[in-house]
Amino acid sequence: MSSFKSLLSQHAATVEKALAAALANDRLEGENTRPARLLEAMRYSALAGGKRLRPFLLIECAGLFGVKSAQSVQAAAALECIHCYSLVHDDLPAMDDDDLRRGKPTTHRAFDEAMAILAGDALLTLSFDMIASEAIHPDGSVRADLVQLYAKAAGLGGMVGGQVLDLAAEGKSLDEAAITTLQAMKTGALIRCACEAGAIIGNAKPDERVALRAFGFAIGQAFQLADDILDITSNAETMGKQTAKDGGRGKGTLVELHGVEATRQRAQELLGQAVGNLSVFGDRAETLANAAEFMVNRDH
Amino acid sequence: MSSFKSLLSQHAATVEKALAAALANDRLEGENTRPARLLEAMRYSALAGGKRLRPFLLIECAGLFGVKSAQSVQAAAALECIHCYSLVHDDLPAMDDDDLRRGKPTTHRAFDEAMAILAGDALLTLSFDMIASEAIHPDGSVRADLVQLYAKAAGLGGMVGGQVLDLAAEGKSLDEAAITTLQAMKTGALIRCACEAGAIIGNAKPDERVALRAFGFAIGQAFQLADDILDITSNAETMGKQTAKDGGRGKGTLVELHGVEATRQRAQELLGQAVGNLSVFGDRAETLANAAEFMVNRDH
Repeated sequence: MSSFKSLLSQHAATVEKALAAALANDRLEGENTRPARLLEAMRYSALAGGKRLRPFLLIECAGLFGVKSAQSVQAAAALECIHCYSLVHDDLPAMDDDDLRRGKPTTHRAFDEAMAILAGDALLTLSFDMIASEAIHPDGSVRADLVQLYAKAAGLGGMVGGQVLDLAAEGKSLDEAAITTLQAMKTGALIRCACEAGAIIGNAKPDERVALRAFGFAIGQAFQLADDILDITSNAETMGKQTAKDGGRGKGTLVELHGVEATRQRAQELLGQAVGNLSVFGDRAETLANAAEFMVNRDH
Repeated sequence: MSSFKSLLSQHAATVEKALAAALANDRLEGENTRPARLLEAMRYSALAGGKRLRPFLLIECAGLFGVKSAQSVQAAAALECIHCYSLVHDDLPAMDDDDLRRGKPTTHRAFDEAMAILAGDALLTLSFDMIASEAIHPDGSVRADLVQLYAKAAGLGGMVGGQVLDLAAEGKSLDEAAITTLQAMKTGALIRCACEAGAIIGNAKPDERVALRAFGFAIGQAFQLADDILDITSNAETMGKQTAKDGGRGKGTLVELHGVEATRQRAQELLGQAVGNLSVFGDRAETLANAAEFMVNRDH
C-alpha cells in the first residue's frame, strides 16, 4: 500500500506538470491572447492539488496495455480539467455556495463570481482542445472517440445532468434508485470515463474495454458511498471542507437511507465487484486493485 | 438580396431542426438519463430563434466545396450551441446582468441562475460531442481538427478570454488596439471559426482555407462595428434587448472613440476586404458576399 501511495503522488505530480504546461502564458496557434487574470483563475482552480484519482485511474488503465504515462498523461490532465471546472461551478453561490475547497477559498471567493464562471468554462473548453490533440493518439478517429466519451460523461446525460438532479433533490427524500442514478451521473460518470479512456488509448480489445468500464462503474459507486460515509463520520479539519452539509440540506444519500454500517458493507461488495472485473488482466492489474481499495477505504 | 434572406431563413430552419434533434428526450448510448428540466432550459436557450449567422457562414463556406447542407448542418448546429451557451452565461447576474434576450426573459430569469449556468455548461459540452461525431466527416483526424478549432475559438484565447477582457474594461477607456483585440476574441473568434470550419469540412486547399479565415476575420470585425453602431442608433424595440447599455457602463467601442460616421466608414472598408478575400472562389461566392453585406448593413 505504501508503494501505491507513492505511485499516486508520482502520477499526481506528472499530471500537475501537464496541467501547468497547458495553462502556460504563451498563446497557442489559433488563439489570440490569453488574459493574465483568467489564466490565474484557471491555475488557481486546476493546480490546487488533490489526489488526482481520475488521472491515476486513466494512466493505470492505459498502462495495462503498455501505454507509458508520458503518453497518457495528456488525456489524464484533460479529464482533470473537467473535474476541476465542475468543482468551480458547483461551489458557486447559485449552486452549493461553498467558501472553502481543500482548505482554501473557492475560486469565486478568491476572484469573483464572473471569473469563476469563466474560468470553469475555459477549463472545460481547454479539456477538449487537449483531448483532440495529436499528442494523445496517432489515430484521429481514436481522438474523436475520446472527445465523445468525455463529452457524454461530462454533459447533460452525465456529470452536468447529475448536478441538476442533485440540486433538484434538495429538501426531498430520494429512494435508493434515484440516489444511485444521481451518483452514477454526478461522480460516477467521470470515473467510468477515466477507466474507459485508458482502454481506448491502449487500443483495448472489446472485452477488455467492457471489463474496465465495469470496473469504473463499480468503483465509482463505491467511491461515492465512501464519500457519503466520510461526510457523516469525519470532521471539517480532516476533510478541508464543510462536512455533514449534504445531509443538513436534505440531500439524499444511502447512508441516510440505510445507515453507516449497511453502506460500508455495500461499498465493500462493490469493491469486490470492481476488483473481480480486473481478473482478465491477471497480476498486471495489482496497482489498480490497490487503487480501488484506497478509494473505498481512505480516511479523507 | 431577397433570395439571400430566404436562404438565411431556410438554413436557420435546418439548423433549428438539427439542434432540436440533438436536444431530444432520449438519451444516447454512453449517457445515463437526460433530466427533463435541464433539457427544457437547454432548448429554451438554443431554440430561441435568431438569425443563425454563424451556422449560415459555415454551411455556405462548406458549400463552396460542394458540401451539401445536409452534411454541414451538424457542424453548424454544434457551433450554434457554443454561441447560445455564451449568451446564457454572459447574461448572468454576475456578468452583464441582462433580463431580456431577443425580447424574451433570459435563461436565468425564465429558470434560475443554477439552471442557466448548467444549461450553458451542457450546451458547450454537447457541442463537442456533436462535432466529434462520425456524421460530421468520415476522416477522424478532420473531426479532431474541428474539435481543436472550436475549442481554440471558444476558449481562454478566444471567446471566453474576450468576455474576460470585456468585463475588465468596464469603467475604463480602451484604446483602439485594445478594443480591436477584445472584439476579435469576444465575437470575432466564433465567426472566423464558422468560416474556417466550412473550409475544413470541404477539404479546402491551404490557400482557400487562408482566404476563408481572412474573410471571417474581416467580416467578424465589420459585424461587431455594425453592432456597436446599432447599439447607439437603434432603440430597444427594434433590437429586443436593452441598448446603449454597453456605452452606459463605460465599455469602449470604436463608435465612442471615433464617432458613428468614421466607424461606418471603417465597417465598409472591412466589408470590402472581406469580399475581396472571396475572389479566389469567383461567382460561387456570391451568396457569401451577400451575407457579408447583410451582416454589416442590417438594421437590427
